Amino acid sequence: MKIYISNQIPNQIRENLPQNNVTYLNSSSITESDYSQIEVAWGLDATVKDILNQNDHRLKWIQSFSAGVDYFPKEQIASQNIMVTNTSGVHSVAIANTTLLYALFFNRDLNLALDMRNQKQWNDKRNYNQLGLLTKKRWLIFGTGHIGSEIAREVRLLGGTTVGVNHTGHSAENFDSTVSDTNYDSELKKADIVVNILPLTDETHHMFNADFFEKLDHLFLFINVGRGPSVNTADLIDALDSGRVEHAALDVFEEEPLPSSSPLWNYKQVLITPHNSSVSSEMLPGVKEVFLTNLKSFLKDGKPSEKIVDLSKGY
Amino acid sequence: MKIYISNQIPNQIRENLPQNNVTYLNSSSITESDYSQIEVAWGLDATVKDILNQNDHRLKWIQSFSAGVDYFPKEQIASQNIMVTNTSGVHSVAIANTTLLYALFFNRDLNLALDMRNQKQWNDKRNYNQLGLLTKKRWLIFGTGHIGSEIAREVRLLGGTTVGVNHTGHSAENFDSTVSDTNYDSELKKADIVVNILPLTDETHHMFNADFFEKLDHLFLFINVGRGPSVNTADLIDALDSGRVEHAALDVFEEEPLPSSSPLWNYKQVLITPHNSSVSSEMLPGVKEVFLTNLKSFLKDGKPSEKIVDLSKGY
Repeated sequence: MKIYISNQIPNQIRENLPQNNVTYLNSSSITESDYSQIEVAWGLDATVKDILNQNDHRLKWIQSFSAGVDYFPKEQIASQNIMVTNTSGVHSVAIANTTLLYALFFNRDLNLALDMRNQKQWNDKRNYNQLGLLTKKRWLIFGTGHIGSEIAREVRLLGGTTVGVNHTGHSAENFDSTVSDTNYDSELKKADIVVNILPLTDETHHMFNADFFEKLDHLFLFINVGRGPSVNTADLIDALDSGRVEHAALDVFEEEPLPSSSPLWNYKQVLITPHNSSVSSEMLPGVKEVFLTNLKSFLKDGKPSEKIVDLSKGY
Repeated sequence: MKIYISNQIPNQIRENLPQNNVTYLNSSSITESDYSQIEVAWGLDATVKDILNQNDHRLKWIQSFSAGVDYFPKEQIASQNIMVTNTSGVHSVAIANTTLLYALFFNRDLNLALDMRNQKQWNDKRNYNQLGLLTKKRWLIFGTGHIGSEIAREVRLLGGTTVGVNHTGHSAENFDSTVSDTNYDSELKKADIVVNILPLTDETHHMFNADFFEKLDHLFLFINVGRGPSVNTADLIDALDSGRVEHAALDVFEEEPLPSSSPLWNYKQVLITPHNSSVSSEMLPGVKEVFLTNLKSFLKDGKPSEKIVDLSKGY
């Protein structure tokens, strides 16, 4: 059986894969005749897209490198009855830790410390009320899946209150309460911190727009660790300018890499990280483990066993 | 009864104090004749030191503004049978939250994000092994009192292992294990993060010196949220230069304010905060509550009831 490993997959997890009856190909080693023989793709790149466009291909399963599969040609894949699995859960702790870092950065006014460093000048003028704690903060978290639940777990451990937003308002682990995505207005007014960790779909595209921000009186911190296009960047900037949103921490952007011309770079109250909130020394072993578990099942039963994406929903 | 409120005490907690049979004086309102009549001092300043030098003063109790009383003339106070109470416990959560921030800052390589901001230039070159999580980190915490225990509590909630160092190695709440302050060498080699939260005494002065740092093979992060003079700064800089200590986060310094000429400002791997790790919107109400509790007891029984300092130990 032939498996294609896409350019997305880092070298360090391509080693020591099971070899029984399996041939691994990559973008350098693949030949014309392989296109119709590959049954499994690990990751998505131009070659996988080429295979999908062949009339006679045998691709049955694509294991995504990422948790989100918004960049997959989902309709085409669904119409060809190909299964897609993601790496949901692998990134949860790193994203949750990063989310705590964002909250602590602004609660402890770390910009003051960094200004001191730039100027080599001590500044201990104390505004007691400016420095906060994570206890008693109220978090409104859009997305109650693996990652949202891990964020909520860590927030609650440190004394915060967690309200989750999902489709139906169904209860979810580690959330003190939940509301539906059509019924969160009153929660928005009470929140100190809003986090987006929703998958990118037609419904969530530009969900955080002027209409959303106008519902706020004052938000201490807006965090996006989901997908960039869920936020209308111009509208977020307006909300920062008007003071409705006091701080923002953004790991993802409508355009990535974020261009040097972006006005976001000029805002001291915006913390920008390079789409790495999910990255950690534990990420690649986790990604590999998901692939190996699903590959074992595929070799035995002809299909992967875990983290199967519902292509109609997009996650 | 006359109570002196020192210049250390912020205005916002001088309001609404009990008025029955009590007169409050400050550095502007105090007169020569008051020096021999004041029984209580809230905070320590030059005037309180002047009172201590009077032969005929009646001072019986000093309520410290801070948790540490290293800057008190303790021998003189002890010889005059004056009681000292501190604010131990009031600062614990803020210091613990700040300690998590330090650990996350370097684990998530936030310097990269801040360099991006300075240069308005995206950089997503991923070194997967450079980014860490708080889970599975091993912390060696010098000091297992209120603050050390709160740091350990929060660290453990997020999956870390906590080893405490105290005088005898007695067990302490929230610590997975403890060792004595003469027996921590093997723990030092295993630690990822070392935290100092010991009070400053003759024993702890320059305790973190070349001898200490030479026992390390490689430490990810050294944190000082105790007192500056517990660290020999020149020796810490040598340890940073040699790579034994990879990062440091310092809230306190041998000389405060830290002078602009300090070489510490030049180290990107050193995070400097202006002795504010304990400050938060909850600090002043907490400080006031301790004073009011002790004042109530003093007015009734002639002595304060809680957070009494052992002047022979210095904490």
